[in-house]
Amino acid sequence: MIYATRRATFNAAHRLFNPNLSDEENIDIFGKCSNPNWHGHNYVLEVVVAGEVDPNTGFLIDLKILRDIINKNILEKVDHKNLNLETDFLKGVIPTAENITIGIWNELVNKIPTGKLYSVKLYETENNYFEYKGA
Amino acid sequence: MIYATRRATFNAAHRLFNPNLSDEENIDIFGKCSNPNWHGHNYVLEVVVAGEVDPNTGFLIDLKILRDIINKNILEKVDHKNLNLETDFLKGVIPTAENITIGIWNELVNKIPTGKLYSVKLYETENNYFEYKGA
Amino acid sequence: MIYATRRATFNAAHRLFNPNLSDEENIDIFGKCSNPNWHGHNYVLEVVVAGEVDPNTGFLIDLKILRDIINKNILEKVDHKNLNLETDFLKGVIPTAENITIGIWNELVNKIPTGKLYSVKLYETENNYFEYKGA
Amino acid sequence: MIYATRRATFNAAHRLFNPNLSDEENIDIFGKCSNPNWHGHNYVLEVVVAGEVDPNTGFLIDLKILRDIINKNILEKVDHKNLNLETDFLKGVIPTAENITIGIWNELVNKIPTGKLYSVKLYETENNYFEYKGA
Amino acid sequence: MIYATRRATFNAAHRLFNPNLSDEENIDIFGKCSNPNWHGHNYVLEVVVAGEVDPNTGFLIDLKILRDIINKNILEKVDHKNLNLETDFLKGVIPTAENITIGIWNELVNKIPTGKLYSVKLYETENNYFEYKGA
Amino acid sequence: MIYATRRATFNAAHRLFNPNLSDEENIDIFGKCSNPNWHGHNYVLEVVVAGEVDPNTGFLIDLKILRDIINKNILEKVDHKNLNLETDFLKGVIPTAENITIGIWNELVNKIPTGKLYSVKLYETENNYFEYKGA
Repeated sequence: MIYATRRATFNAAHRLFNPNLSDEENIDIFGKCSNPNWHGHNYVLEVVVAGEVDPNTGFLIDLKILRDIINKNILEKVDHKNLNLETDFLKGVIPTAENITIGIWNELVNKIPTGKLYSVKLYETENNYFEYKGA
Repeated sequence: MIYATRRATFNAAHRLFNPNLSDEENIDIFGKCSNPNWHGHNYVLEVVVAGEVDPNTGFLIDLKILRDIINKNILEKVDHKNLNLETDFLKGVIPTAENITIGIWNELVNKIPTGKLYSVKLYETENNYFEYKGA
Repeated sequence: MIYATRRATFNAAHRLFNPNLSDEENIDIFGKCSNPNWHGHNYVLEVVVAGEVDPNTGFLIDLKILRDIINKNILEKVDHKNLNLETDFLKGVIPTAENITIGIWNELVNKIPTGKLYSVKLYETENNYFEYKGA
Repeated sequence: MIYATRRATFNAAHRLFNPNLSDEENIDIFGKCSNPNWHGHNYVLEVVVAGEVDPNTGFLIDLKILRDIINKNILEKVDHKNLNLETDFLKGVIPTAENITIGIWNELVNKIPTGKLYSVKLYETENNYFEYKGA
Repeated sequence: MIYATRRATFNAAHRLFNPNLSDEENIDIFGKCSNPNWHGHNYVLEVVVAGEVDPNTGFLIDLKILRDIINKNILEKVDHKNLNLETDFLKGVIPTAENITIGIWNELVNKIPTGKLYSVKLYETENNYFEYKGA
Repeated sequence: MIYATRRATFNAAHRLFNPNLSDEENIDIFGKCSNPNWHGHNYVLEVVVAGEVDPNTGFLIDLKILRDIINKNILEKVDHKNLNLETDFLKGVIPTAENITIGIWNELVNKIPTGKLYSVKLYETENNYFEYKGA
């Protein structure tokens, strides 16, 4: 079993806001992250696939194929987007880094052609990152 | 003459949009960067001060003081903000990285207590950065 | 289960020295790291918490709370300190990166309010890092 | 159990090419990575050892010793080399990052004097990295 | 005057070898860098353009255009190439980082549509980088 | 004219303390940086040499020679040392990053065999760095 990681980046706007709570409660929990005028991040995404090496190619998975899968299924939906308003796989959840990470996992888990999705990591800032390995 | 640099980071939303142009012209020039629902970045700011070393302290400038000047004059106005809507020193300009860099210079140039402001650098993504050294 | 990581940095002095051994033995084992006049590092600390996402907040743990826990319990005891002389949780051990990492784990393991401490990582230089996940 | 990581770098040339396939099939699978005139990388290697801390030294393993083991067994065979032509432990395999990672594991697994080899990580570019923890 | 920098990366093979010198002299000067079987690097390129901000766009230069100029004029000639054998603008010079940097400058200096080429920086390893600002 | 940079790192202890001032004044100016039990840093040093490319070698300066000059004249005097007590070229000055940077310049300026010393940069933390280009 070998683990292959592909890194990608995207830039997006979001705000942390729970519509079931009052504005005061939102500010109390989320502080400046709940600014109604939005803020944003340069997110760094790492997608880890686990499996066996194909002796014919020496690859676990052709990372150009993995890159294209990430581009089509994730980056097109989040890059230069508003994660609260425009990203279908985040509808109904607060777009915290935790929920973005889980959402990316769910989008990708059935689309890996060789090996299996092992982990999704998301860096929101240089001080905060998140990882999900499935339920 | 020695050069002392202080680094800071902030997260903000923006869109590139010229209100004097049509929507089509804006999309033509700015592409996905003109998304009306905004996007955002983790900006990295470097402020460079130039001057002489004070033999009493060994400092050109106490970087804790420079940090506080950056916090009060810049970060409070841009961190977790919408640069188009909420940042006074960017009113009337398109908040490209070029204009943000120049705006930060103008905010800081008269507020450095020791030495002189030499350069402002702004990294918008890992592939793009900007520098301004005054008019 | 999701993993949330908070990064922090601190600057400290130390020397590697076992008082039960002779000076010659110390130099033999630790070389220049046993310099009696000390040396120091910019340590980078990563604290990983594992648990479930709270649907009310979208957080595993509010990272501002985790930051404050790290500041109070770790950074106040190690930042700009001498790890041999001044850090209570390192009393009686040689302050190698291994022992600092384990000491930080022990300080934090019962103080995480949401989720559980999963891992402590410590980078001593750009070429050396350490991780501990408990006994 | 603690995990200690030592990082090293090397620069090498390679091409991805399966001699059992036609040139067209090689280009189809490997694209520009199969250029017969070679290309190369700055590889970053991380070797992770797991084990107990020796109370006499505070070390899991003296990282200077681990560095020397990596230098002698790996770097001398790959640094400034052609991985297809000159590296004995890659004979007979396509020198993909996957196979280099596994080859390094096999070279090191029986040469760790204290603790056990836990993982070998190899960064081929800033966007691609690989990890192997044994069969 | 503002300075805008675009970063790009490429992977290439080379060897340091002066055909006017004997093999012994080459080894004496270049050591393992003259390995006849080649070695390679992940080069990081930074291209700096200087000029005025266009008030209509807020740009010095649209960095997507600069990216395309770099791709067409530089990356297509060096990425996954052998710099000794395949890169036209390095014909007749030893492909040291110095000469690659100067060669990239010469390729780009007359192709910048807005502002002027100010500097070309090239990182060959994490410990070595080079800059050229014209003759 | 081309600029060649060599990067090196060292780990050292220091404290900021002016012996001509009272303890209270030292604490007032330097805060926790004046801790009498010391603290330390992983310093990153960049030495920039400027000059012409030798057509015989393609080098401005053989960076292995520059590395050896830095090792002998700087790293042997600062790495794993106490900068207040043990570094001859810092005797009589407060070892702030400013003074260390100037001291390194003075040590190196007459020892560059090819080209001229152009700049010395010193990173003390990830947020603070300094540059000196001579008097």
